Amino acid sequence: MREVAIIGVGQTDVGEHWDKSIRDLAVEAILAARRDAGVDRADALYVGNMLSGELAGQENLATLVADAAGLLPIEAFKIEAACASGGAALRGACLGVASGAHDYALVVGVEKMTDYLTDGVTAALATAADADYEAGFGVSFVALNALLMRRYMHDFKVRHEDFAPFSVNSHANAALNPRAMFRQPITAEDFIRSPVIADPINVLDSSGICDGAAALLVCAASEARGSRRPPVRIAASTCATDTVGLAERRDPLVWQSVADSARLAYDRAKVGPKDIDLFELHDAFTIVSALSLEACGFADRGSALKLAAEGRIARDGDIPVCTLGGLKGRGHPVGASGIYQAVEVVQQLRGEAGAAQVKGAKVGMAQSVGGSGSVAVTHILRI
Amino acid sequence: MREVAIIGVGQTDVGEHWDKSIRDLAVEAILAARRDAGVDRADALYVGNMLSGELAGQENLATLVADAAGLLPIEAFKIEAACASGGAALRGACLGVASGAHDYALVVGVEKMTDYLTDGVTAALATAADADYEAGFGVSFVALNALLMRRYMHDFKVRHEDFAPFSVNSHANAALNPRAMFRQPITAEDFIRSPVIADPINVLDSSGICDGAAALLVCAASEARGSRRPPVRIAASTCATDTVGLAERRDPLVWQSVADSARLAYDRAKVGPKDIDLFELHDAFTIVSALSLEACGFADRGSALKLAAEGRIARDGDIPVCTLGGLKGRGHPVGASGIYQAVEVVQQLRGEAGAAQVKGAKVGMAQSVGGSGSVAVTHILRI
Repeated sequence: MREVAIIGVGQTDVGEHWDKSIRDLAVEAILAARRDAGVDRADALYVGNMLSGELAGQENLATLVADAAGLLPIEAFKIEAACASGGAALRGACLGVASGAHDYALVVGVEKMTDYLTDGVTAALATAADADYEAGFGVSFVALNALLMRRYMHDFKVRHEDFAPFSVNSHANAALNPRAMFRQPITAEDFIRSPVIADPINVLDSSGICDGAAALLVCAASEARGSRRPPVRIAASTCATDTVGLAERRDPLVWQSVADSARLAYDRAKVGPKDIDLFELHDAFTIVSALSLEACGFADRGSALKLAAEGRIARDGDIPVCTLGGLKGRGHPVGASGIYQAVEVVQQLRGEAGAAQVKGAKVGMAQSVGGSGSVAVTHILRI
Repeated sequence: MREVAIIGVGQTDVGEHWDKSIRDLAVEAILAARRDAGVDRADALYVGNMLSGELAGQENLATLVADAAGLLPIEAFKIEAACASGGAALRGACLGVASGAHDYALVVGVEKMTDYLTDGVTAALATAADADYEAGFGVSFVALNALLMRRYMHDFKVRHEDFAPFSVNSHANAALNPRAMFRQPITAEDFIRSPVIADPINVLDSSGICDGAAALLVCAASEARGSRRPPVRIAASTCATDTVGLAERRDPLVWQSVADSARLAYDRAKVGPKDIDLFELHDAFTIVSALSLEACGFADRGSALKLAAEGRIARDGDIPVCTLGGLKGRGHPVGASGIYQAVEVVQQLRGEAGAAQVKGAKVGMAQSVGGSGSVAVTHILRI
């Protein structure tokens, strides 16, 4: 397999873009990535998106974006893996470049969610659950995560307020990211007083509904040498799956797809958790942060909250997470989030993260999770 | 790039499967493909599907199918490219195997359309058009094809009844395919008397709404030598795009994505139209058959109807098309059709097409088209 590198990144602000369509957002990010790389060439376009069909009445999205971005007659596909669609699109591009079929591939993750009523968005997001055995009975995604959080609190004898440090950390980091949606720092006190959505999950446990697009230009590492920006090598790109239905799991607090995908990535990149300088994890809810840190070997079972409470997830801690705000602080335009994570790891590894810079970062991990831990895509990047 | 081969095929009957869910259909086809190959191994699952979100309220489909088929924790993605989703999923699997990341990959195309009212299905299919500039104004897919057909009739001075041979051919072939949905032969007289849907398109111009799933087991050609069935080599796998909106094209009767994708495939496989022994084209409507034959170099512009009238598209003609019924006769479960086409080419190349066998077929082409010619995926297979 040929090695693959990222030589260009682009992103739109994350927020409520009522004046821009899904194609506008995608094009803006793609053009930014091409400008960043200073390279015009692209042999394929991979689009990560989950909800354009449900929310915008638009399938055939990859072709639509290829046209709007002036890329015709480029090869173009949309890849969907629920909230892991962004990571999955990057994985697809890695395979395409590694195969030799493409020398250069553009990847864009895009989602447009704020033009619709929240009820409709909640129903659309629930399509990531099992339609016959979960969503069909009215269980929304926040409800599924509330079940997990309650179980975690019971099994490990922790209180809801013990999850506060994840949200506080994400907001503190988002405050330093000009692209982020929620740039106000919060306190543990704010977290505790935040209104409940689905007991025990409250507003500050949860990532927001938003719009955004992020893009990457990837290429064969052998082509990257002359690039304008320091190339960032994709040292591992992996995916693993678990049951869609939570009730089918032996232990719902073990996120096996996340663990499998991370283990495969460590093997491929020949690193372990100790070698990771920053971890862009999928903090759609605070409970996901805890389960991901434990599944990926950064904390023992039931001890991720302690890790967070001790400040070890902060920018200057052992394992900085969500260094530019994560899904909670930056915002979670679902099919785009996996690409935002990769863009942000690249910013850190290049030393371009500004006030949010993790000093001396050389190895970063981005992990995109779909459903309630049913599919996980992990990338390890190195400079 | 490593060479890729198909060593197993499976399919469900095409029809109205009111007693089976989308996951049941997908699993049935996957198990059949694994049985056919006599190989248990699979390193990845690629799912081609367009409408599971809109119609079944189910995204995250690849993980759902992976679980139901007993494939966890396999790497799994859904690939969407409108009605070309099946072809696109096969293309994805080819890249994955060619890269060396997978030695064996399963590909399944699946669609479940008949549980819903026709109005809802028509609206869902219209998501393959431009939501802002076409579907948003109420233009359905049959209407877009009706515009193309009327323009073709005008430019080339042909009558609607001149399209009859395409439909007659597809039905004659479907009558010999036990998996096909519409197994009754029809006459040109039947075609002429068929009720109009969107003038000039009538029922017998159009493929039907239906359910079905088809699957392939692909592997590195180097692994295929010991397989139970004669391996069929994928000599070319290509994709090209054009504008989604018909109004954006310089000439709507030139299907540039189809032409580009075919040209790339001929180059890759080192063949020309004359070398193709059978062509599984995307006859969603009879006008698509005409435009595809012309774009792929089997007929000059405006002369595909003559080719059909002379019987040259029949099983014993120069370029047999839709040899097991095509989209019109077999049925068009949209995201599955591209895989049905590949399965049928394999049946022909292996000499397993029964009464529908094209004698001595060695090279077959399958072409999956999304939107009104906005994206085309072409595969050339050889034995």
